[in-house]
Amino acid sequence: MSAPAKTDLDTLCINTIRGLAMDGVQAANSGHPGLPMGAAPLAFALWQRHLRHNPKNPKWFNRDRFILSAGHGSMLLYSLLHLTGYDLPLSELKQFRQLHSKTPGHPEYGHTVGVEMTTGPLGQGFATSVGFAIAEKFLGATFNKPGHEIIDHFTYGICSDGDMMEGVSNEAASLAGHLQLGKLIFLYDSNHITIDGRTDITFTESVEMRFKALDWQVQVIDGMNVDAVDRALTEAENEKTKPSLIICRTIIGYGSPNKADTPKVHGSALGEAEVELSKQSLGIPLEPKFYISDEVLAEFRKAVDLGAEREAEWRKKLAAYEAEYPEEAKTLRKAITGEFGPEWVEALPSIKEKIASRASSGIAINAIASYIPTLLGGSADLAESNNTHIKDCADFQPDTPTGRNLNFGIREHAMVAAVNGLTLHGGCRAYGASFLIFTDYCRASLRLAALMGCPSIFLFTHDSIGLGEDGPTHQPIEQLASLRAIPNFNLMRPADGNETVACWKIALQTHDHPCLMALTRQGLPPLTPDDVQHHPAEKGAYVLQEASGAAKLILVATGSEVSVAVGAKEILEREGIPTRVVSFPSWFLFERQPKAYREEVLPKGTPTVSIEAATSFGWDRYAQAHVSIDHFGASGNGEAVMKEFGFTAENAAMVAKELLETP
Amino acid sequence: MSAPAKTDLDTLCINTIRGLAMDGVQAANSGHPGLPMGAAPLAFALWQRHLRHNPKNPKWFNRDRFILSAGHGSMLLYSLLHLTGYDLPLSELKQFRQLHSKTPGHPEYGHTVGVEMTTGPLGQGFATSVGFAIAEKFLGATFNKPGHEIIDHFTYGICSDGDMMEGVSNEAASLAGHLQLGKLIFLYDSNHITIDGRTDITFTESVEMRFKALDWQVQVIDGMNVDAVDRALTEAENEKTKPSLIICRTIIGYGSPNKADTPKVHGSALGEAEVELSKQSLGIPLEPKFYISDEVLAEFRKAVDLGAEREAEWRKKLAAYEAEYPEEAKTLRKAITGEFGPEWVEALPSIKEKIASRASSGIAINAIASYIPTLLGGSADLAESNNTHIKDCADFQPDTPTGRNLNFGIREHAMVAAVNGLTLHGGCRAYGASFLIFTDYCRASLRLAALMGCPSIFLFTHDSIGLGEDGPTHQPIEQLASLRAIPNFNLMRPADGNETVACWKIALQTHDHPCLMALTRQGLPPLTPDDVQHHPAEKGAYVLQEASGAAKLILVATGSEVSVAVGAKEILEREGIPTRVVSFPSWFLFERQPKAYREEVLPKGTPTVSIEAATSFGWDRYAQAHVSIDHFGASGNGEAVMKEFGFTAENAAMVAKELLETP
Repeated sequence: MSAPAKTDLDTLCINTIRGLAMDGVQAANSGHPGLPMGAAPLAFALWQRHLRHNPKNPKWFNRDRFILSAGHGSMLLYSLLHLTGYDLPLSELKQFRQLHSKTPGHPEYGHTVGVEMTTGPLGQGFATSVGFAIAEKFLGATFNKPGHEIIDHFTYGICSDGDMMEGVSNEAASLAGHLQLGKLIFLYDSNHITIDGRTDITFTESVEMRFKALDWQVQVIDGMNVDAVDRALTEAENEKTKPSLIICRTIIGYGSPNKADTPKVHGSALGEAEVELSKQSLGIPLEPKFYISDEVLAEFRKAVDLGAEREAEWRKKLAAYEAEYPEEAKTLRKAITGEFGPEWVEALPSIKEKIASRASSGIAINAIASYIPTLLGGSADLAESNNTHIKDCADFQPDTPTGRNLNFGIREHAMVAAVNGLTLHGGCRAYGASFLIFTDYCRASLRLAALMGCPSIFLFTHDSIGLGEDGPTHQPIEQLASLRAIPNFNLMRPADGNETVACWKIALQTHDHPCLMALTRQGLPPLTPDDVQHHPAEKGAYVLQEASGAAKLILVATGSEVSVAVGAKEILEREGIPTRVVSFPSWFLFERQPKAYREEVLPKGTPTVSIEAATSFGWDRYAQAHVSIDHFGASGNGEAVMKEFGFTAENAAMVAKELLETP
Repeated sequence: MSAPAKTDLDTLCINTIRGLAMDGVQAANSGHPGLPMGAAPLAFALWQRHLRHNPKNPKWFNRDRFILSAGHGSMLLYSLLHLTGYDLPLSELKQFRQLHSKTPGHPEYGHTVGVEMTTGPLGQGFATSVGFAIAEKFLGATFNKPGHEIIDHFTYGICSDGDMMEGVSNEAASLAGHLQLGKLIFLYDSNHITIDGRTDITFTESVEMRFKALDWQVQVIDGMNVDAVDRALTEAENEKTKPSLIICRTIIGYGSPNKADTPKVHGSALGEAEVELSKQSLGIPLEPKFYISDEVLAEFRKAVDLGAEREAEWRKKLAAYEAEYPEEAKTLRKAITGEFGPEWVEALPSIKEKIASRASSGIAINAIASYIPTLLGGSADLAESNNTHIKDCADFQPDTPTGRNLNFGIREHAMVAAVNGLTLHGGCRAYGASFLIFTDYCRASLRLAALMGCPSIFLFTHDSIGLGEDGPTHQPIEQLASLRAIPNFNLMRPADGNETVACWKIALQTHDHPCLMALTRQGLPPLTPDDVQHHPAEKGAYVLQEASGAAKLILVATGSEVSVAVGAKEILEREGIPTRVVSFPSWFLFERQPKAYREEVLPKGTPTVSIEAATSFGWDRYAQAHVSIDHFGASGNGEAVMKEFGFTAENAAMVAKELLETP
């Protein structure tokens, strides 16, 4: 028998993906077979005819990025990774959704090879991709030289109806259109089916027209036709200015005689009987399960040699670049490894005046910016308030793509996602900023950074009722607690300028979790050590002022309330109560210290009062009494509001004395 | 001197608003003068020529609703409220942004008369308005009879560039377009300026085309021309099917010779000198400040008589309706007051089987639905998973506007905002649902409900790692803690079917804060009292199982972990340790109980272990040891995952014994 014609082989390949998806979900009796079955032609056309990647080196820096925004279709991605030769054996596909397998319900970054980011919460993959594409554009503009296109790749993705409905994707798409991210290309698996039924029960807008309004190139095609997908991808690649959305009309669960094109195939196993019928209709042998024919495997595995060749070509180009531009190449290597040497640390300034921590943060950024040339970031329309601007640098705009100041617009959610994408891409160190209250707008992306272990940096200013007149809609109360509660997330609330600079050092030296600094609007007197290179803030909490004798009382405080604690200590000491003051910028860092250190700073049994202009929620772990605000704030002058709600040295001393008197 | 021509008087009125805004912000030396100055013509045309309201009865049920989504322009609203005769004296405008004034930085519902909702966090006003408009459409369809249009009003709003950039507004607009909310009309103050500069640095999309794609009527007009605004409003009112966006090109800070059309006038006081120059250019006397001429006041105050007339007319219509449709009128009155009598409470069922709490919730909804005919709600595309469906009721769709099942689409943020709007409108009791993890997508709106004291009801299922295979992207860890941390927010996590039904009773009897139920995917055995009408869950926490002797140990648990606690107690009792089990569905309710009750349930000094499949963050308040998960979850079978992370009776008993052995 002769080998099948190309088209037939394509179909075999596509149906193989469908078979793997059905079998994986059926074995787990859990999961989403519909998307992989419907979108298999999209994935095949993209992976076999366009995607430049190297399965044997998934971290090749100039690879095209692929993001499955519709993470529930994870079996699609796992199938592609296995078939094209990544280190994901078939045995793992057979363990789909089982504890300790490499094939969890949704793709997880850092857990499964070849997964560029964790997806599943809808809209996140789409929005984060915008950050990947910004990174590519920025790095390319910064490092490429005529004839040396060292950074030059596409960011591709597959998204679903749910991605298109989530607000974050509209924010991100608007930003991408404005920034003219021409190398961002999404295939939209438009299958008209969601969990609750046909999309026409709630989603009748024209996505085509909306994306045109957002300055995207939009094509509408038959997604079941591989060649049409192929052609549309080429068209999208040829469009250099606009990001591209290819709306692919597909049939969810294609191949299932009784469930295709219905919600039944979206999120549950087909059932053994329907799997059999589907395999029959697709011409897949019933046994063995997880069937892959040799010819299909050979076809997919061409990716291995092709990938090796492509990377080798790139390495040649890189060598030529290094020969001609040794300095730039050195900088690029530093950017990729993230190792910038000791200069930036030495350049960190001490801060001697009374200034807001948001201002100290701005000083820190500008002190290090020239030493870390791929540090870039910005704000969600509050650059001046957040002090995010890198001086003498342009804005990142279509005509100034080397600009390091990003204007995210009033789009906090897309901003955080984009910062995650910039960070995950590699080569960039990115930050984003807004008011602390607006962490509520972007928690899903903040959490995802933590889940991925992505070292994004966030600056959230106006961090308490001390912001004053804007009132309760803008005054954080529960935000510090709710950020501390996120696993693998380092919330830091520095007490003064030096602690703020130290927090920047900590953040830039972090590689496995996000860091968020909560910063003040109001001025903070200098209180903490000025050796910012070796600042005790690195331990999360430390004795800032020792008691005059054996401590009878400990005051722990963060941020702007450290000076309240210092004032209260003075009163208490005058009254004969030896009082220790502990500055506590980071629970996350403190809780990683050895027990001995922790008990040295906060000995068991010593009455302790926490002072923080926020909810007391959580502080029972460290203190028996609290100077806190357990209700919403109020509009008024910042100092007046702080006083109104008890954040004064006098009140803190009184609360402390009450605690000492409690039996 | 004769009275000025109408046009001149219009201009005087509009400039009066501008003067008040300048003076208010200048007196506070804080705030946003630019929007009120630019959008004054919009507000004037709407309030004086279209809005049907009664300043002397701000709660008149059939009034048009007005929402200033751009809440930072609060001086615009305060000026309108004062000028048209609401109980907001000029002395309060002079106290703008001062502690204890009625004129906080952003408009606050329940604090200032005539404010329909709290706004400021961008996008919220816009998205919540969609809920108001749904309420009007649903109530109108439900109660109106031929010739008796008892419920018949518009929902108007003013929004800004920031509102248009936020993702939540796109979700809401897409939903509104689908639902054909023809009586929703927004004036978009398109002034092309945000805090960071001109909108062209980041916001270059075509809002016009986008909203057309979302099936809105869109008009683009000169917003500085009152008659153009007037005509566009009429056009919008005449469009019965599509919601309307009127894009008004305006000049921010109009009248300020040196700052108009620049970011400088967006968010800070003009300065005394510029205020003077602006007043001169607008023909406003320099003194007194907060100047309102008699003729301007008389013109605005026509709203008082007009409002009284309109309400009187409506009351006549209502009387005619009552005469002809006494039963319907009675139901409408119940809906408006929210007092449905005792029948629905009596109808609440006991649940005797082992079922998931999401299923018990579905049973509760259907048990009470016929007694509370304006109870309506739905899910963000997870109706079947969330068990939100009211049986024998239609979906709320354009052609079935009496439907009580809402399809919000995959738009959690807009859903929560819409539920808030439905609730604030009055007449409706609304609920929204999704997976607990997705509270991260809608926290800004959840918080706003708490801040407003809005008794929205939320059902968030799949409330722990027990959901299993979907894995860490879908498994809540920190969500319970971060919701408990929100002030004025009742998070309830019921332990079994009866507690779930009791939680529904609590939620429906709540009038001043939101309630959120965290519900399981997995089955829960019946453990708690079956008298759901008088269930101890109402106290937030209670002794579920008493120790065999004087309690040496207390196990507190919530939701699915209550059965783990019961199992652990059995082990511990067998080993001779008298152990009390406390079911703790609601911190919020428990912390409102008298101290005596709280200390009775959880006596000081008795070693206590908390058991909750979530972070331990916060639990130090009540327990010294925790069975918790302080890291992200894992994909796998739900029972296997629970066991893997220690949520078994055996492990809980071990943790308890370790606590007892701790010195």
